[in-house]
Amino acid sequence: MKIMVLGADGFCGWPTSLKLAKEGHDVIMIDNLSRRKIDKQLNSNSLTNIYNIYDRIEAARKFNYSLYFINCDITEYDNFARYVDQHRPDAIVHFAEQRAAPYSMKSHKERRYTVENNIIGTHNVLNAIIDHSPNTHLVHLGTMGVYGYSKEFGAIPEGYLNVKINSTQNDTDILYPTNPGSVYHMTKSIDQLLFQFYNKNWDVKITDLHQGIVWGTQTEETQLDEKMVNRFDYDGMYGTVLNRFISQAATGNDITVYGTGGQKRAFIHIQDTARCVQLSIENPPSSEKVRIFNQVAEVHSVKDLALMMEKTYNGKVEFLDNPRKELAENDLQVDNTGLKSLGFEPIKLSNRLVDDVLYIAQQMKENLKQENILTSPRW
Amino acid sequence: MKIMVLGADGFCGWPTSLKLAKEGHDVIMIDNLSRRKIDKQLNSNSLTNIYNIYDRIEAARKFNYSLYFINCDITEYDNFARYVDQHRPDAIVHFAEQRAAPYSMKSHKERRYTVENNIIGTHNVLNAIIDHSPNTHLVHLGTMGVYGYSKEFGAIPEGYLNVKINSTQNDTDILYPTNPGSVYHMTKSIDQLLFQFYNKNWDVKITDLHQGIVWGTQTEETQLDEKMVNRFDYDGMYGTVLNRFISQAATGNDITVYGTGGQKRAFIHIQDTARCVQLSIENPPSSEKVRIFNQVAEVHSVKDLALMMEKTYNGKVEFLDNPRKELAENDLQVDNTGLKSLGFEPIKLSNRLVDDVLYIAQQMKENLKQENILTSPRW
Repeated sequence: MKIMVLGADGFCGWPTSLKLAKEGHDVIMIDNLSRRKIDKQLNSNSLTNIYNIYDRIEAARKFNYSLYFINCDITEYDNFARYVDQHRPDAIVHFAEQRAAPYSMKSHKERRYTVENNIIGTHNVLNAIIDHSPNTHLVHLGTMGVYGYSKEFGAIPEGYLNVKINSTQNDTDILYPTNPGSVYHMTKSIDQLLFQFYNKNWDVKITDLHQGIVWGTQTEETQLDEKMVNRFDYDGMYGTVLNRFISQAATGNDITVYGTGGQKRAFIHIQDTARCVQLSIENPPSSEKVRIFNQVAEVHSVKDLALMMEKTYNGKVEFLDNPRKELAENDLQVDNTGLKSLGFEPIKLSNRLVDDVLYIAQQMKENLKQENILTSPRW
Repeated sequence: MKIMVLGADGFCGWPTSLKLAKEGHDVIMIDNLSRRKIDKQLNSNSLTNIYNIYDRIEAARKFNYSLYFINCDITEYDNFARYVDQHRPDAIVHFAEQRAAPYSMKSHKERRYTVENNIIGTHNVLNAIIDHSPNTHLVHLGTMGVYGYSKEFGAIPEGYLNVKINSTQNDTDILYPTNPGSVYHMTKSIDQLLFQFYNKNWDVKITDLHQGIVWGTQTEETQLDEKMVNRFDYDGMYGTVLNRFISQAATGNDITVYGTGGQKRAFIHIQDTARCVQLSIENPPSSEKVRIFNQVAEVHSVKDLALMMEKTYNGKVEFLDNPRKELAENDLQVDNTGLKSLGFEPIKLSNRLVDDVLYIAQQMKENLKQENILTSPRW
């Protein structure tokens, strides 16, 4: 298939592009390289030594991967729509959103950038599809964070909640009432409303993947050449919780838990991100309604993860004041039957964690800047 | 009180500014005059001869109205935030959104303009408040159109729907699951998510007024001087259904109904718009949750309105193919107890309609351009 990947230079976008190319698809990679610019703005860096996009692609082409890069900002409509019209891809995978909760809460500049970049971008994608390529299947990366962690709502279903309307006694499925925890998560709740309307009015085929917290660095494909290495974020802004713990354990730092660590979250390995996107593309939905999958492998509390790291790597867990407004403790059960029914077999943390820590510890110690570990703003 | 009105030159913004000034408030009027520019773009016009903003204000000041105008586009953050910081108003009334459903469905340009103008604008208002004036009460004009017209949901409550979660058997109030019918209405659904999050995280005091279809032209205050006359839209883009019928009846044209006319909708007179905003400002909510009111006076089917016009004015009703995707027929009951509990006594259509038709018929016949009556795009 011909697949356009938006945000193809990023932490999820790059390994997903490689995976899709490996499976024989033609991949048109679009990125404005904004993530690299934000690194500079924050004086931060990937722990891995990532290569520039041209070197990455040159290396990948040696394995006969069909990859083609366009430097394009999808918030510039005319430019972007021209590429959609030119290529009319079977699927567009949309990773091109600012994706860090702490960054989105830093100041009005980052709050506004996150909303404007993410909403204008998603809306442009929908418009380019209906105007130029109405049969294109849009695969969007959402987040488990849209659901919030309310006890009242029970186990988290895949996007739609079955309720009884008390005034009429009718049973019906509604789009899950979202309760995002940051401006970033809020943008993914907003994306849902865009998808709902464009699907209803123009029959756009859409899969929204509410992804758990991604961990890990390398995939089978990124390991093929050192120039193809994936990025690894460890800082307080972009580092996801488990990856922050991994980098702390690997470099002999304290493992810092926000609050009690009683927050339960859903996790997925980066290799599985790529696999799930592949499965979604190869099994497109009808246009009857937006298809929503929970893209998660397993659930753990933050504290359990920290203690697991402590035990295995002789780190020391330190509990810090939580900079985030969130429940101190919560229960979490997540339905992930949709992707499993398509063949997804989750990689479990217990099997892969050791490899990732060793890789980071051996290769990347010298890249870690201490002052970037605890940079999350309070909110 | 010191009140900032955004979109103060518009159909609702202007009479509301006057009403607030008449009640003794100091009104800072903000507008970028975009509505006048769209008239030019569409080669359309107000049926009434509206004066420019400076003449309007000069006339109003003769009645000792405290009005102060700033030409500012609220999507330009730094500029707008400076004014919020400078004035720190008790309340901000936010009318500054592109508000025509047909216009929002015209082409990708109007779809994107509507989303970008409305979402960036609302988000900027919230950011300016939390950064510069956290005690300001935000009063936002929403729309009844966010609710959709599903039979399953019964009578329309004020913003929150009481449901039983079937998986847990818990009863809870959720933000009403929206089902907007146009890109314009979708932006007001999105606004709700912005309000929900900024209220939760930063305790912003917010009233969201889900307004019915506004009809009428003049208010007690706009009638004081011909230079203070309000605008009246009759075209297929910006004319609301009853006002289109009024202008058709008054000028001897057919009264054009979309579809069967079995669509029931909620209506409110422009004088009541101003009154309800006044009541909301003078009775601010706590910051515990977003306060949502349905700002409506009464419910009618489109067909009944058309037949009423036909009977009274010897017009002729013509049924046209509906350019909109909407239910052909629907039932509608709307809760409006919130504003009534604050003292709102709705003006009924039966009492005012004659005046408005006569006013339009006598004054404005020669301004109507036939070719603008049926300009709605199909969607």
